[in-house]
Amino acid sequence: MTRMPNPSQRGFNAPASPIRKLVPHADQARERGVEVYHLNIGQPDIETPEVMRAALNTSLEPVIAYSPSNGIAAFRSYLLNYYRGIGAELEPDDLLVTTGGSEAIIFAFSSCLDPGDEILIPDPMYANYLGFSTMLGNKVVPIPTSVEDGYHLPEDLEAYVTPRSKAILLCNPANPTGAVYGAEEVQRVIDLALKHDLFIIADEVYREFVYDGPIARTMLSYPELSQRVVVVDSLSKRFSLCGGRVGCLVSKNKNITSAALKFAQARLSPPSLGQFVGSGAGAVKPEYFEAVRTEYKRRREVVYQSLAAIPGVMVHRPEGAFYQMARLPVDNAEDFVRFLLDSFQRNGKTTMVAPGQGFYATPNTGVDEVRIAYVLNEKDLQDAMDALAEGLQAYNKN
Amino acid sequence: MTRMPNPSQRGFNAPASPIRKLVPHADQARERGVEVYHLNIGQPDIETPEVMRAALNTSLEPVIAYSPSNGIAAFRSYLLNYYRGIGAELEPDDLLVTTGGSEAIIFAFSSCLDPGDEILIPDPMYANYLGFSTMLGNKVVPIPTSVEDGYHLPEDLEAYVTPRSKAILLCNPANPTGAVYGAEEVQRVIDLALKHDLFIIADEVYREFVYDGPIARTMLSYPELSQRVVVVDSLSKRFSLCGGRVGCLVSKNKNITSAALKFAQARLSPPSLGQFVGSGAGAVKPEYFEAVRTEYKRRREVVYQSLAAIPGVMVHRPEGAFYQMARLPVDNAEDFVRFLLDSFQRNGKTTMVAPGQGFYATPNTGVDEVRIAYVLNEKDLQDAMDALAEGLQAYNKN
Repeated sequence: MTRMPNPSQRGFNAPASPIRKLVPHADQARERGVEVYHLNIGQPDIETPEVMRAALNTSLEPVIAYSPSNGIAAFRSYLLNYYRGIGAELEPDDLLVTTGGSEAIIFAFSSCLDPGDEILIPDPMYANYLGFSTMLGNKVVPIPTSVEDGYHLPEDLEAYVTPRSKAILLCNPANPTGAVYGAEEVQRVIDLALKHDLFIIADEVYREFVYDGPIARTMLSYPELSQRVVVVDSLSKRFSLCGGRVGCLVSKNKNITSAALKFAQARLSPPSLGQFVGSGAGAVKPEYFEAVRTEYKRRREVVYQSLAAIPGVMVHRPEGAFYQMARLPVDNAEDFVRFLLDSFQRNGKTTMVAPGQGFYATPNTGVDEVRIAYVLNEKDLQDAMDALAEGLQAYNKN
Repeated sequence: MTRMPNPSQRGFNAPASPIRKLVPHADQARERGVEVYHLNIGQPDIETPEVMRAALNTSLEPVIAYSPSNGIAAFRSYLLNYYRGIGAELEPDDLLVTTGGSEAIIFAFSSCLDPGDEILIPDPMYANYLGFSTMLGNKVVPIPTSVEDGYHLPEDLEAYVTPRSKAILLCNPANPTGAVYGAEEVQRVIDLALKHDLFIIADEVYREFVYDGPIARTMLSYPELSQRVVVVDSLSKRFSLCGGRVGCLVSKNKNITSAALKFAQARLSPPSLGQFVGSGAGAVKPEYFEAVRTEYKRRREVVYQSLAAIPGVMVHRPEGAFYQMARLPVDNAEDFVRFLLDSFQRNGKTTMVAPGQGFYATPNTGVDEVRIAYVLNEKDLQDAMDALAEGLQAYNKN
């Protein structure tokens, strides 16, 4: 027998993605001829703007070469303009193009936190903060929120601070809850950061996806925070460019950007092709966002109203992003999701959603919750929600 | 005064890339009207095969969507075929598409090593192993090699093993030295790994770039190592596709691939556009590699002969990859590189090479060395080498 060396503890401990781990069940359903509505993942069905796809071809050269580690000039220039438009005047060195928002998170964590350092994050949270933290060795300290409070922040944030606290992360608008944090609660975060000398890592990838008010104010626009804020951003959702893998890290703290640039140099370059597409974003008209927002607002109602009508379901209407958390009348939501994929269909179709527990850092929490991404057109979405509702009845009859 | 919070120690300690850190000096030279030959970075001037660039357009859809975390089916299928062709029969789950070889290194390190664990690597080494290790907290233990031995491995590898040793990394053909390790030396690495229960992380991105013999045998083809080998691979050099950012991690150890897959799910997806290009690689004819090899073989001679002719320069003819290390008759090679960029020109041109010290994990080593990437056509390369030689004379007159 060959010995099999053990993987690292961090490799063993890393959480499986709640968004992707049940994908094999969906594949099997499809193999049985069942159509699966994918509400488990934030992959919008909206087209990447044509003017951006066209920019790919005009930029393509015979050698598909590395870009500079901090991004190609045309794309950087678009981004600097974009930030100016939302109230953030940047120096060129404040901005680093990354391989999607994902890599911006990795660079932000690595540059702000050492192994063992703590980062406070409202719970439930974007699940991959946990995966990256396991990889990098920093510790996530959850700030509990709940559907009863619309997933807004508790009054007392200080209770979660320890001598190892180094940063607080705010994803605004929030994935997976849809919360849009108001001025007063954001101020609470700011006060905490100033009092305890914390970095604020601001995940603003859903900035434009606000349905009942103006777009979320960027943390870069608070002068008193200039040395304290690290923004994580991405074009994936904003322009339906998930596969391009382009985003950025922005900070006015030179210590952070110089650390992040060293990590960026180690990986050589963000994807050139995605940056070519991104360079075309300056030509996208503001009407694009208006139309997208209107569309998502309608979808939000489909999902929210469908869920609110099911007895025993507990929901809060999301204020932004394109996710809805829901507490279901089941003991174990993951088991229910498996049931939908393995043993249920309605007119040859079923619905895949993400089990909620994986979005919580607090143990044994969210076991009866799911996250629903409203990323399909209204008709399909309604059909998907009808299948979910009927599936829930069938599941609870078992 | 606003307080400026400190970055992480790892962010502070991360090494600057020896390949990229002097780029601002090159930019300034260009601004002064001096043309710069870039021999500092392994960015080939060879065209990405046209059949691959064409595959991008045929695959492009209106939504540039995430790919599966382990890669798109067409690209995975090409890769599985490619490995079969070089003697490695893989199960589909043995292979994970990554964002270039860079991400494959990050996943390999994270999956095999915990913070504090040691990895043995022949020194000098690909500098970014050091950057990624700083980010992830594992410790690099250098195995010294030198130009006098053609950068081949010492007899006694065991001297570098400690209770924290978890892996040995072999880049074959080697960047930055151009060494191609022969069967006997590779066996020494294998014996060590078996005796001390180490993983072998095999960086094989230059597999085809061997000039005096057959292509390097993949570590995946040794049956006795099946649970012990993690291969890091990339299309960047093989197909001049550096900007596509596509590569892969391959292992038959399910513990490793399942850990790596969890990290891969956290970052959602490798770049879809680069994978579209990569999917076309199956249509590239074997003659392509023959022509590329012949071209690089000629370039190798230009660089090697030019350097060997300079009094006081110590070089060993590289056997593979497309790099040449050289010991120069200077006290400080980085200072010489700055001189070439800041204060020298020959017919309006100068040459940028990478200072050698950054490729060594052993402190205060390689201070008088440089790495030269022979990635330009023969004529430009000869001109670049002539500028280097004349620059060396001018520098030593100062």
